[in-house]
This record gives sequence, structure tokens and C-alpha cells, in this order.
Amino acid sequence: MVVIGSGFGGLTATRAMDHDGVSVTLIDRTPHHLFQPLLYQVATGILSEGEITPPTREVLRRQQNARVILGEVTDVDLDARLVTSRSGEQTTVTPWDSLVMAAGSTHSYFGSPQFAEYAPGMKSIDDALAIRGAIYGAFETAELLEDPAERMPWLTFVVVGAGPTGVEMAGQLIELSRRSLHLNFRSFDPASARVVLIEAGPKVLSTFGPTLSRRTLGDLERLGVEVRLNTPVVDVDELGVTVRSATGTERIEARTKVWAAGVRASPLGGLLAEATGTPRNRAGQLDVLADCTLRGHPEVFVIGDMMHLPVPAVAQVAIQSGRFAARQIIAKVEGRPTEPAFRYRDKGNLATISRFRAVASIGPLRLSGTLAWLLWLSVHLLYLVCFKNRLLVLFHWGISFLGRGRQERTAPAATRATTPAQPALLRKAAS
Amino acid sequence: MVVIGSGFGGLTATRAMDHDGVSVTLIDRTPHHLFQPLLYQVATGILSEGEITPPTREVLRRQQNARVILGEVTDVDLDARLVTSRSGEQTTVTPWDSLVMAAGSTHSYFGSPQFAEYAPGMKSIDDALAIRGAIYGAFETAELLEDPAERMPWLTFVVVGAGPTGVEMAGQLIELSRRSLHLNFRSFDPASARVVLIEAGPKVLSTFGPTLSRRTLGDLERLGVEVRLNTPVVDVDELGVTVRSATGTERIEARTKVWAAGVRASPLGGLLAEATGTPRNRAGQLDVLADCTLRGHPEVFVIGDMMHLPVPAVAQVAIQSGRFAARQIIAKVEGRPTEPAFRYRDKGNLATISRFRAVASIGPLRLSGTLAWLLWLSVHLLYLVCFKNRLLVLFHWGISFLGRGRQERTAPAATRATTPAQPALLRKAAS
Repeated sequence: MVVIGSGFGGLTATRAMDHDGVSVTLIDRTPHHLFQPLLYQVATGILSEGEITPPTREVLRRQQNARVILGEVTDVDLDARLVTSRSGEQTTVTPWDSLVMAAGSTHSYFGSPQFAEYAPGMKSIDDALAIRGAIYGAFETAELLEDPAERMPWLTFVVVGAGPTGVEMAGQLIELSRRSLHLNFRSFDPASARVVLIEAGPKVLSTFGPTLSRRTLGDLERLGVEVRLNTPVVDVDELGVTVRSATGTERIEARTKVWAAGVRASPLGGLLAEATGTPRNRAGQLDVLADCTLRGHPEVFVIGDMMHLPVPAVAQVAIQSGRFAARQIIAKVEGRPTEPAFRYRDKGNLATISRFRAVASIGPLRLSGTLAWLLWLSVHLLYLVCFKNRLLVLFHWGISFLGRGRQERTAPAATRATTPAQPALLRKAAS
Repeated sequence: MVVIGSGFGGLTATRAMDHDGVSVTLIDRTPHHLFQPLLYQVATGILSEGEITPPTREVLRRQQNARVILGEVTDVDLDARLVTSRSGEQTTVTPWDSLVMAAGSTHSYFGSPQFAEYAPGMKSIDDALAIRGAIYGAFETAELLEDPAERMPWLTFVVVGAGPTGVEMAGQLIELSRRSLHLNFRSFDPASARVVLIEAGPKVLSTFGPTLSRRTLGDLERLGVEVRLNTPVVDVDELGVTVRSATGTERIEARTKVWAAGVRASPLGGLLAEATGTPRNRAGQLDVLADCTLRGHPEVFVIGDMMHLPVPAVAQVAIQSGRFAARQIIAKVEGRPTEPAFRYRDKGNLATISRFRAVASIGPLRLSGTLAWLLWLSVHLLYLVCFKNRLLVLFHWGISFLGRGRQERTAPAATRATTPAQPALLRKAAS
């Protein structure tokens, strides 16, 4: 059996296949699992990348029937039952009898891919580090400028999309500017930074219901976030964004933009769609049967963000569908009957707004404030894959939430906006 | 007053200038201080980059007379007393009355700069992350290869130079392969990896004296490091290194090479040498007077790795000369007499070999084993700039030394040797 993707779905499926009768190969283009819900904390300097990226082979080291292959999948052959993957100069071909497609999703710019250059999304650890570099680099640049009018676009942070990721990002940016960077600068007050949260729809956290949505909006505005509802983005460039508002188009000058608006299933879905003629929805998700398999291919499961079923694109769906797929494959191996349909058990939604404030929607229950925050904290710690990371994260949270520190501000040079392109004089001096 | 460089020398000088009568501007091309002695631990996955790179402006936030400017220094005008620095598109010109040059050093390839591409040195946080990517990427690639003969060059790690950095790096690579990666791979045993430490001279840790040098050699060999003394490197390419040995030239096939052999003072020394006609030694260090000033320029201090005085290029020299320079500048401001000469107080040398084993040379004292290791641990914790980082580092050390974990294996994509250059098929599928 082959699993493509080491995210919540793929890793759960692999671990659930810990069974004598089968062997599993997990293929992913990164060597690590990624705890996506905390990417925004890596981007804003609270956590290190290692804390949310446990190495996949370390997680699976005691599962002797599991093998991990690093590689970007370049082809899936449904007839010959082969997956081709590539890593550096190495091409690897892996045969399978069952396949679990769990390659997740990337961000969607709704037909305007050119926005990506100026408003990066947050789906990989590299995305988070690039955004970290952009945020801290913007404050560094602001310190160099003498004219407040020139400085303001560097101190304006636009977050597009007011789902959980956008809300959490906006909340963290406010905390960063109002608390964490206190006394760090001499030519301006970091608390003067603007954080603008732009949402095309009429609500923040629309999936959390009207009560929590309203409370979240109130909380964000009290913290200082400028929330712009019913405001679609029409253009993004290096210097800012253009939005459509009630009164026409409006321009917001902002050097740093973060895209948290849309998701699109992995391009690998396109390979399967082409090969089988399976339709995809607008988000690129593949139509699957009720048991998550591809029509005509009962041996191919498509799970998590890649499948089109009436369930949301959240971590819990990936985890539960991963476990479901593994259960069916083992049932077949053991000659037991399989379940006719995947059933998603909604465990609720959680989002933090700032330290000590979160919202939680669990069945009929609606929580907000400190209680919801403690719940958020416990659940996230619980789902972190590795025990040591739980301790490290808890420790970093103590520093950031009880104190005001951000211990992880360093971003790779390649992502620093402030890196000079041509230190030519220095090269001369070196000779 | 302007300080160039936020390393041990520059940051110490800046902090020692916390005095009403002066204002200090610290200029550096990175926004952080760097605790260089632990770079090898970032490279081998024990520590996160944030733990050894406290943001300079965070360290100095309560020192109201200090200002931090991010920028690569492109010119120093000794007549007009101006420093020009550049960050992104911003050029900043900063006037000074006293100047402290503390730009440190970079690695030296002894006239063969083309080695740099294949054998990166370890002087910046980006270097360490690139080496991290290369090391873990090599193990990942080895897992993909079926032919043991093809695999071995990926499992061979060459460290050039057996000073403290080289010894520590070799020791960590052995720990990594023998303990940390245990059970992580299916097609080979990571303990079969070779670690080759190559030294042109006759001794490891030559500055520690014959007793400790001999003990270190014995320890390294017992751990499994192949130590090659009296073996100069004559060529480095993508696939390995060529060395000159007693019997002629010899080839070592190794995909991963780390350069820990030589240092060369910052190219900024060249700017000053050109402007003043001051001679530099072979390591690029500037001739200075006994009080660390440039001849004819009593207002310009050159400290740490950049100055040519009969002292070693170590952190303690940078720290002490930084403090000395600050003291002289304050004395002048207050109209008190200055000291005629910088005096280095040797506090001793420390190097770790593996967990629980280190060597220490302090005055007439020679320590090795666990006692030296505990000393190493205490001193390094003590010198870490920020208290929170001390706690984090201690915690990571617990994980790595008491356990076997390496929590920080993730490297930016740009540094991963395993990233495919052209995932062309995927782009097609995305359309």
C-alpha cells in the first residue's frame, strides 16, 4: 500500500496501518509532518519550525511495516499501479495494491495567481518562514525611514480572508506590534502599526455561527484590528491592495500582505482526474464515492482536502478519513466486510483571537473568552504529534503569552526583504 | 559613536556604552546577535535558529542611548566620519565621532574560493541551516538508493579542520548517525555512516596542548570518527575531496563536506586598509596599535577577529576588546586618561567531543571527560545572551543528551539538496 502525503490524513492512515498483513510506503515531498494549525505562530515568531514539523520517519521509526520515501510525486499510473516520485536527481518508482491520496491542498488566488508573489499564502513551513521574514523585515525597514508617510506602508499589514487562519494571523500581528515589539524601535512606536483584516463575505469566522462571529468581530476591533467585511480584493501588487467597497474601489498601501482566503486541492488531483475522467469541483477536489474511493477504482482512496464530499476542509476530516481508509484496506486484507460510507463526526471548531481569548463551537455549545482559550490550548497540545514538541511548545507559549517574548524571529536570508541584492562595494573590498 | 557588527565584540561594546554622555548606533547586516560557538548544534538539529540569534534590538531595548540599524556597510569615510549602509532599497548614512569596527570574520579557503560551493563554512545562521539541509538531505537520498556503492558517498561526511568547530561538528555527526537516527531508515543502518575529520597539521585541537589533544584524538577515534592528521586538502568538488597523504594523493568520495579550517577577517577590513594604507596579515586582520586603534586614527577601534594583535581569534578576545574600546571612548568623553594597551585575560579554552565528554584548558589546568563537559555546559549557558534562551537551550540539550532526539531537523527548501529543480509534470497537472 502507498500513501501520498504526510499531513494529517496521510500520517494518520499510515499509523492506522500498523498491521502484520500489510506494508506501507509513505511518499511526501517534505521529510516532515506539518502541524498546519500552528503555522501562523511560526510566521509570527512564537514557535520554531522544528516544533511543528516532526520528521515523518522519526514518528514512524517503531512501525516496522512502514517506509518513508522523500520525493515529489510526478506520476500515478492507475493501470500498472505505480507511483513515480522524484527527489533531487533520484527517480523512484513504487508499486502499490491500494493507494491513499492525501496530498492536501494549497492556497487559491481565485484565478489571480499573480497575487502569489505579493501576498504569500501559508500552507508550508517555507511559506511561514517567508512571511516571518517579511513581517520582521517590514519593521526593520520602517526604522530606517525618516518620513512617516513613507514609513506607514511598511507598518501596514493586510490579511486577506477572515476564516480561522486569517483571524489568528491578524490577532497575532496586533499582539506583536502592541506588546512584543515594545521599546524595540527608536524612530517610531510599533504600536502605531495598522493590521487590516479584509473579508469578501459579510462575517468573520462564518462557519462558527452568528454569535461567535459577532463576538470575534468585537474582540478583534477592541484589540485594534481594522476589520473590513463585504470587501473583495480586486488587485494586489508590491505596494498594497485594491479592494471594492460600498463606495467604489479603495486603495490600501501595505508592503506586507498575507493570503488566508482560499484553498485549492493539490495539483495531484489533476493527474487522477485526467486519467479517469473524474470530475473536480471549483476547489479542485475530486468527486469520490461515499467510501472515499475513486469511481471504478475501489483500491484508490482520496481523502482529506483532496476529496469532494459534503464535509469541510479541516484537519479533523483528514484525520478521520485517513483512519477510515486504513480500516477499509485492512478489512479487505483480512477478508472482512468494508463499511459502505465515510461518516464525519464533527468535533467542533476552535480559533484563537489573542492570548487568553478564543472561540469554540462544539455541537450546540458556543464558548468564548478564556475558557475557550484553555480548550484551544489543550486540544492543540494534545494533537501535536510528538511529546517533546508538546513540552517545547508549552514553554514557548509561556514565554509569548505570559511574557511578551518572541524567541523565533530569525528567518532565512533568502526571505528577508531587507537583504541587499548587490553588495558590490563589499566584493571589491574583499579582493 | 558607531559600532559595526553585532557579534560578541560589537554587542559587548554597545552594551558597555550604556552611559548618559554618549549615543551609540549599532549597524549590522543581520537583525540579530549570533552565538557562534553553538552554530554546529543548529546545523545538526539540536537547537533552533532562534535560540542562538537573539534580536539585537530586543537585547538593547532598555538601553535608550542605543539605536540599531539593519544594513550591509558599503562604505566607511574616515575623513567625513560617515558610515554608509544599505538594506534592501534603503541607503543610510550615519555620522560618528568614534567608530568601533567589529565585523568579525568569515571562513577562508586559503586561496581556493571555489571550494565554498561544495564545502560550506559555518559562520552565519544561514550557513548552519544550509548544512542542516545538506546533512539530513544526504540521509534521505541514501534511503532512496538501492546500490550500497552508490549510497556510501551520501553516507560519508567530511569535516575539514580539527579545531574546536571541526571536532565538535565531527562528534555531533557521529552522535547523529549512531544514536539519533536509530531506526529511522529501512534500506540501510545510519550507524554505517562514515565521519572523516581531515586536518592538515599534526594534531587535533592544537591550541589545547599535547595532553588534551591526545585525549581528544583517542575519544574521537573510539566514537568512530576517522581522523586524518597531516593531510592537507588539495581539491573539493561535488562528489568528494582529494587529499595529500603520506603515500600520494587520495580521493574520499563524500557528498557532504563542512569547512572548519580557516578564518579570514571581514572584507570591511579591506576598506580601512585601502583608505589608510594600514597593512593586513594573511588572515586579513588589520595592524592596530596596542590600544586597538588604527594608526593615525585614535577615534577608530578595530576589535575582535578583525584586529591583528598577538591574541587568538576567539569569542573572549572579541568580548574583552569590545569592553576595552567602550571604556576608552567613555574615558575620553569624561576627560579621564585612557589605558595605553589592551590586555587579554585568557579565561581558557573549551570544546565538546560528544555528550558528557569535553576538554577544558584553563591556565595550567587540563580537564577532560564529564567534569569538563559540565563546565562547558555551564559556561555556554551563562554566555547565552537572553535568559529565556538559556532555558530553551537547556531543554533542547535535555532532549538531545539525555534522550536521543533532534527536534530541529527542518531546513528551508532552498537548502534542501533533495528539492527537485523542475517539477514540470506537476505544473502540467495543475492546469
